[in-house]
Amino acid sequence: MPDIPIPRQTLEALLAQTGFDSGRLAIREVNRLASLLEAKTGIKFVRMEFGVPNIPPPPQAAAAEREALEAGTHGTYPPFDGIPRLKRAGARFLKAFLDLEVGEECVVATCGSMQGGFVAQALAARMHPGRETILFLDPTFPVSQLQARFLGLPHDGLELGDLRGDALLAALEARLERGDVGGVFWSSPNNPSWTCLNEAELEGIARLCDAHDALAIEDQAYLGMDFREDYSQPGEPPFVPTVGRYGQNWVLLLSSSKAFSYPGQRCALAVISPGLHEREFPALEASCGTAQFGHAFAHGGLYVTTSGASHTAQHGLAAMLEAASDGELDFVARTREYGERARHLRKMFLSAGFELVYADDNGAAIGDGFYLTLDYPGLESGELLLELLRYGISTITLKSAGSSRDGLRVCVSFVNKKEYPVLEERLAQFSEARA
Amino acid sequence: MPDIPIPRQTLEALLAQTGFDSGRLAIREVNRLASLLEAKTGIKFVRMEFGVPNIPPPPQAAAAEREALEAGTHGTYPPFDGIPRLKRAGARFLKAFLDLEVGEECVVATCGSMQGGFVAQALAARMHPGRETILFLDPTFPVSQLQARFLGLPHDGLELGDLRGDALLAALEARLERGDVGGVFWSSPNNPSWTCLNEAELEGIARLCDAHDALAIEDQAYLGMDFREDYSQPGEPPFVPTVGRYGQNWVLLLSSSKAFSYPGQRCALAVISPGLHEREFPALEASCGTAQFGHAFAHGGLYVTTSGASHTAQHGLAAMLEAASDGELDFVARTREYGERARHLRKMFLSAGFELVYADDNGAAIGDGFYLTLDYPGLESGELLLELLRYGISTITLKSAGSSRDGLRVCVSFVNKKEYPVLEERLAQFSEARA
Repeated sequence: MPDIPIPRQTLEALLAQTGFDSGRLAIREVNRLASLLEAKTGIKFVRMEFGVPNIPPPPQAAAAEREALEAGTHGTYPPFDGIPRLKRAGARFLKAFLDLEVGEECVVATCGSMQGGFVAQALAARMHPGRETILFLDPTFPVSQLQARFLGLPHDGLELGDLRGDALLAALEARLERGDVGGVFWSSPNNPSWTCLNEAELEGIARLCDAHDALAIEDQAYLGMDFREDYSQPGEPPFVPTVGRYGQNWVLLLSSSKAFSYPGQRCALAVISPGLHEREFPALEASCGTAQFGHAFAHGGLYVTTSGASHTAQHGLAAMLEAASDGELDFVARTREYGERARHLRKMFLSAGFELVYADDNGAAIGDGFYLTLDYPGLESGELLLELLRYGISTITLKSAGSSRDGLRVCVSFVNKKEYPVLEERLAQFSEARA
Repeated sequence: MPDIPIPRQTLEALLAQTGFDSGRLAIREVNRLASLLEAKTGIKFVRMEFGVPNIPPPPQAAAAEREALEAGTHGTYPPFDGIPRLKRAGARFLKAFLDLEVGEECVVATCGSMQGGFVAQALAARMHPGRETILFLDPTFPVSQLQARFLGLPHDGLELGDLRGDALLAALEARLERGDVGGVFWSSPNNPSWTCLNEAELEGIARLCDAHDALAIEDQAYLGMDFREDYSQPGEPPFVPTVGRYGQNWVLLLSSSKAFSYPGQRCALAVISPGLHEREFPALEASCGTAQFGHAFAHGGLYVTTSGASHTAQHGLAAMLEAASDGELDFVARTREYGERARHLRKMFLSAGFELVYADDNGAAIGDGFYLTLDYPGLESGELLLELLRYGISTITLKSAGSSRDGLRVCVSFVNKKEYPVLEERLAQFSEARA
């Protein structure tokens, strides 16, 4: 049996030193351990724990920000629901890539999609007295649930890994019928499972949310990154699937962090359903000073939390949306690089005896995107994580990523081509040692 | 009697057309009316309704942002409690201008002071079960109270216009003894009254908040802008007065919008008392997942609302704080221009028969700063506002600015020297017509 690169004692000494609970390492703890192990052993890790983008932002963003600085916009307050240019660019982009028609007043700027999700959850829970629960279609990015917790809202979940298609809709209907759900929250493509809701599912969710007057909150954190389809052509089908094409009760969160490699400036869009924007919910008045949903979102929510998003960043995002709509920026092609990395990494892991945890996407094979979900027969996920650390490979457990399943989440964004042979060799070593 | 420039019928027609309630015009409504009247009559208004900065940002900000764009920081997530450079620059600045020693971990970046105030109020209300009330030292910038409302918190007020010195402290003590107050919130210099709490008052507030374990939340929206003192020399007294030098239970909100003319980028600092940062409040766990105050602020609050502030803007603010601490940027001298404008405008209004509403600042004459508070004998403030509109002068009522007193708030930031003779003549006309 070959030597494992990092001795068990080295890892155990660091665990004792840091005081981390080896049975449930959080993402930042894995990151810290990997860095400490690198420093101690000189072995450069293949880093796959963080789910952060790693592709340079399109040049349009910085160019537009520089222009905005030149014009002095950093010296004036932005309108707290977004500058007209960004609202206009957002509405055009939605038509071009999601085949969604909304007025500019329905497009609001937020400090990251995080702020849009925070305000959307707050309003979802307050639109109707007694319907405070946020229902997550799990797995769920854990911070979305922390938002509900900070807002003091009860939450519940339906597991997408077990429920798809008609079964999902039947379960959702049964859950909504209990009458306590104010909002239904999901991300598609999903972090970490990378499952993607299809048009029939989205149509069904929209119908059920409308029927039960619950708010559908769709998190497009990975917009256009289901690379099994080509969503890259403005104005041409296929269009990015969205609940927005079907129902009346929705808020769509459009992040720029991954799709536009623009996480640094905390600038995103929230899109409010035109059918909801003007609607009045008297129960919103107590907390937002207005019954009108759109006004409550901007004036009640965005104003009191940050009073707007960075002025120059709004120009940066607008410039990218404009260039994409004009066919001058193929934002999908840029992120397709992640899909390529996932395809290579998936093959390596499977060759080494790993198995996909979420392999099936409602009858189709799961796509290659930003994450892989993997386990190894005979090893519980916490043990597997620790064992891979000893080979210079850092990952997190699916449980810590909001999934109820055993296994690991592997983010492909930081693995470059030069590391492929290194990873392949380490996985082969691992596999050999387990045989 | 001379003609009034804008006939009553013109104003009344516009009020009817817009549907605004002439008895309680909000700031945005006054702004809209003034713009409509300008368009209709061709009379250029002297605009004094908005309390927004109007001095170019120091060049260090844009230069640092351009460098940060060059380095690609817009493509990477900022740490959600702030980049190390900004934390370091903030700690240095606090020592240099407020004579306050805090560790870098106590300095966190926020999306505008608004976010710091929002999170601070949320934590204040949750540190101790049953003490949810936020007590405002009025007048209060209305949005601060809207934050409490959005968070579902009860609020109460003590009127600084009536209570100063020992009387203020006695009233505060009596109010805290009722046992329901979690936080005490104030702004000094105050918007709109421009009263400034002195060292003895701040010491007393700190002592009372510590004794009753309430959180003191100090909003330094107009940092260094009490021009009666010269706060411009780093490391030299006098230092900007702050509750931070006295107590243990405080959060200080340091806005860049006015003091650094940097409102566009929504980047500010919240400073957490070193005596509070590590302290544990078990009641915080339910909503923030941690009992430790500092961790709850950043991980519980900032993370779930926006996950950080603009990466390049953090460099921009850091560069200004660094230059100020190095004595290379006299940020006080830049904003002193507002004080000069206020001095001129005050004289004009008083010559025309107006009176200061808040004239006394705890025994001293009120300073000339960002706002003037004015009334005119025999005219109720709503009438006075409408009457001045007819002379091409736009203001808002003190009531709409969070004060309980009659009168108007006049913001001097948009009045330039060229407009002085215009304003003077219009005021003389107004005065003549009333005589």
